[in-house]
Amino acid sequence: MPPVHALILAGGAGTRFWPASRAGRPKQLLPLLGGDALVLETARRVLPLTGGWERVLIGSGRHLAAPTAALLDELPAQNLLVEPVPRNTAPCIAWAAARVARLDPDAVVMVLPSDHHIVDLPRFREALELAVATAATGVITTIGIRPTHPETGYGYIEIDAEAAPHAPGALAVRRFVEKPDRARAEQFLASGNFLWNAGMFFFRARDMMAALRAHLPALADGVEALAAAEGTEAEGEALDRIFPALPAVSIDVGVMERIDRLAVIPGDFGWSDLGSWHSAWELAAKDAQGNAAPGGTVLVDARNNQVVDLRTAATAKRVMALVGVDDLVVVETDDAILVVPRSRAQDVKLVVEALRARGDGALT
Amino acid sequence: MPPVHALILAGGAGTRFWPASRAGRPKQLLPLLGGDALVLETARRVLPLTGGWERVLIGSGRHLAAPTAALLDELPAQNLLVEPVPRNTAPCIAWAAARVARLDPDAVVMVLPSDHHIVDLPRFREALELAVATAATGVITTIGIRPTHPETGYGYIEIDAEAAPHAPGALAVRRFVEKPDRARAEQFLASGNFLWNAGMFFFRARDMMAALRAHLPALADGVEALAAAEGTEAEGEALDRIFPALPAVSIDVGVMERIDRLAVIPGDFGWSDLGSWHSAWELAAKDAQGNAAPGGTVLVDARNNQVVDLRTAATAKRVMALVGVDDLVVVETDDAILVVPRSRAQDVKLVVEALRARGDGALT
Repeated sequence: MPPVHALILAGGAGTRFWPASRAGRPKQLLPLLGGDALVLETARRVLPLTGGWERVLIGSGRHLAAPTAALLDELPAQNLLVEPVPRNTAPCIAWAAARVARLDPDAVVMVLPSDHHIVDLPRFREALELAVATAATGVITTIGIRPTHPETGYGYIEIDAEAAPHAPGALAVRRFVEKPDRARAEQFLASGNFLWNAGMFFFRARDMMAALRAHLPALADGVEALAAAEGTEAEGEALDRIFPALPAVSIDVGVMERIDRLAVIPGDFGWSDLGSWHSAWELAAKDAQGNAAPGGTVLVDARNNQVVDLRTAATAKRVMALVGVDDLVVVETDDAILVVPRSRAQDVKLVVEALRARGDGALT
Repeated sequence: MPPVHALILAGGAGTRFWPASRAGRPKQLLPLLGGDALVLETARRVLPLTGGWERVLIGSGRHLAAPTAALLDELPAQNLLVEPVPRNTAPCIAWAAARVARLDPDAVVMVLPSDHHIVDLPRFREALELAVATAATGVITTIGIRPTHPETGYGYIEIDAEAAPHAPGALAVRRFVEKPDRARAEQFLASGNFLWNAGMFFFRARDMMAALRAHLPALADGVEALAAAEGTEAEGEALDRIFPALPAVSIDVGVMERIDRLAVIPGDFGWSDLGSWHSAWELAAKDAQGNAAPGGTVLVDARNNQVVDLRTAATAKRVMALVGVDDLVVVETDDAILVVPRSRAQDVKLVVEALRARGDGALT
């Protein structure tokens, strides 16, 4: 296996886990499933492939750099790629590719989101290894998740069933498809030829640079200049000058949808994008009544509820009591309480909008 | 009108307003409807009849004396009747009757619960005045609430429709009836001859002492000894020795159900015993969506909810957000949060039981 670098994209924002997630403390920095912060759990999953933290890169944003670095205390400081401004995914991925290309153009870079959950770690590692091996042959590779239901919230990857696999288990991609409506999602599920796009990409550094040179030449120029400045006195100035001018485009649209040869590894390892409190409840440990709640919660005739206590300043003993309620999410932080039916978990973003509209953006 | 004394019974405990109410902070000491503590609002309602605080007596318990006195800062200290142990209502009422009888046996004592709500104050005062005037003629008198629905949670008073009124508007009582089942409650409502027993009683001090002498002579002896010791060095010792030995009986069972002549004034002034969070919501000011919630609460597609914030140590700005929920009660205190559908408000007592069973009685 070639040297493997990992880029974990951890610069994203989001409102669907309010009040746990905030502008300065987004989902990937939270221990949403009760263990460690999601970004740390993601990094731990790939360390066996990278051989340690030296080859782990973390894509972050300026306002997230300090809390992210604090969570990842073994990460070398220069491995935190701090975007001065958000520019979607292609610039950060290109930046990582350019940095690795200067060291070792044949090394494989794997790009992973920082805020997903994986249930079956051995099968996940198998998929990663197959994707790395495929990428090492010179084919940009992705992992697609076998769909379990006609989800309309994800993009899809269509397999080219007639083309020969790029490697055993590494199928040819026909196309990327944007989020479908319900009817198309059902067709996709029925056809068996569509996988969910989970934002995981694998490529040799040289192959990504070549693809950028072909399809996004301005981006290729920019990140090569950034990589050249790395470790010099000009680095900070170059970043502030170059990065904001890079094209703000997703890697899907900017590269993946445009290249001819693309391999996909079907993944079947228990995956969740943790899109809302609903999915957090699905993955949480639950009691016999289906409640996921901290010990000490009083539950009287209450079923399938989720109670999340993220207070940091627990000065007094505090008890949460749920009586006669089902399918609720109740989240408590130091400065907010949220009560929402699990089926309405997507609407938490409306609270964030309401708070911002009334001048309480500090609570978001 | 004769001199009027008021005894407000404020020694009760209860669990149905947990987590607002606690063993040391029962319902009557809380501003449940957003104004002042219920006991203070009750006292204010009767001051025009008593002519000031000098003739207001407050029945309390040992563990409630200090917070009650703190709430009623104009109450003379000796007017707080502190029961060493709970002995139901008859001993406290008898104690008050004996005290007033030593001063002025023809004075009228009105006995009122401390934790009810009255909507129409002018009509309430009219009923009080009629009851006082009737009691002044030598007939023990009560006020009965005209029922609005077949309530099974209250006792009833049956009017003797064939007997002549004791005074204009003061009807003769046939009997007191314990809480009925649903079918009987519906019969009571249909008959038009039944009123709710709201625990309001009016009598000349001499008449109550005579009734006690006839039906509860040990109680009459005991409270006369207590009254004789009032203001002497022996007062405290007498209270601790005599009070715990008094018969623990309600005034309804011990006196009202046993005497022959009893008048009742039908009351129709908007009354609530504030029996649960449900009734607190019914009486609360609500927005156009039926929500009773503090300003600042974020309500997204939420209807007919009640949010109660009784925190005292609001160190940080705190926001409560309800999304897509209807008919919920959410109560927050410094050390507890309760979430319960309004229709299940009676079951809050189960939380208190659960906390006590697991050794968390300090939270109740």
